[in-house]
Amino acid sequence: MENHSEEKIDYIYCSQVLKSLDYSNSVTSPAKLSKNLKLRPLQTDDYHKGYLELLSQLTDVGTVDEKQFIERFNQMKSDGKYYITVIEDCDRNRVICSATLFTEYKFIHNASKRARIEDVVVDSDYRGQRLGHLIIETLKLLAQKLDCYKLTLDCRDEMIGWYNKLGFIAIPTRANMLTIRFIS
Amino acid sequence: MENHSEEKIDYIYCSQVLKSLDYSNSVTSPAKLSKNLKLRPLQTDDYHKGYLELLSQLTDVGTVDEKQFIERFNQMKSDGKYYITVIEDCDRNRVICSATLFTEYKFIHNASKRARIEDVVVDSDYRGQRLGHLIIETLKLLAQKLDCYKLTLDCRDEMIGWYNKLGFIAIPTRANMLTIRFIS
Repeated sequence: MENHSEEKIDYIYCSQVLKSLDYSNSVTSPAKLSKNLKLRPLQTDDYHKGYLELLSQLTDVGTVDEKQFIERFNQMKSDGKYYITVIEDCDRNRVICSATLFTEYKFIHNASKRARIEDVVVDSDYRGQRLGHLIIETLKLLAQKLDCYKLTLDCRDEMIGWYNKLGFIAIPTRANMLTIRFIS
Repeated sequence: MENHSEEKIDYIYCSQVLKSLDYSNSVTSPAKLSKNLKLRPLQTDDYHKGYLELLSQLTDVGTVDEKQFIERFNQMKSDGKYYITVIEDCDRNRVICSATLFTEYKFIHNASKRARIEDVVVDSDYRGQRLGHLIIETLKLLAQKLDCYKLTLDCRDEMIGWYNKLGFIAIPTRANMLTIRFIS
């Protein structure tokens, strides 16, 4: 019965892939989450579970109504490259942690794929519970499962140490991210 | 007649968009190219025009046969997010410069798009002719035309000054790119 109901949920990627990940070499795993917390792909209903409010703790979200949210969700879903993964507090029906894994086709490295982590945010009320660790470990395992040759992310100076502990390094002479902003 | 023949070429994105770009505020433009050089989207026939050999001046390409090349090309083309732009030396039927503009859907910033520049390479025999400038200026104009809110790239230390002159900056405290490599 539970599986049947799971199948009807409109996830942004197949939730089965999360169940197939092997956390045995990771410092954390979804099994360690408290009962009220659930790790899963983003779903359309997250519009009503505070997903955009959560993102606004990270950066400017602007005004995105439900129609625009679902349109963008469907574009991402049909692309099949947006592994947006969240943790929900099911007691409160709120999304309280999110991060995106995003893959890019390449010709280089035997026509491989590169993966990126984007838009990592933990609700301020839930920080210090290692939820960020869990979501990043999950996306690392997912990037490997998707046969990506590397995984990268951009981060602020104060987050470097945190990501270093999760295995991300600044490759000497190659760790620069440059930007042009068209809209401030 | 020329237009008719152009339409039959299998470009990775619509070549008309390049013709619509306004270079009047740029330091360079395709009009300044010598007659033998042509700026255009990647095409399937570039497999036979040294495209992969050109990429191998940048990094490891591995072994990609024509079937794999066309398969990957078609995946990128159907995604519609890969603006791989090249310069061909038509006298030699060789691709001698390439860079990729790649766009990513976002929920943030009013459900906007972010753009990235990837895999920039100028053939060693053609360096110092400002072909790199032209291709990067082209991708900047393209990213704006595609309504991206920002454009970023990762680069090596020695390239920072070069990209600074083209308007890219290391935003203080936010210019770090961290990596995990799964395959060396």
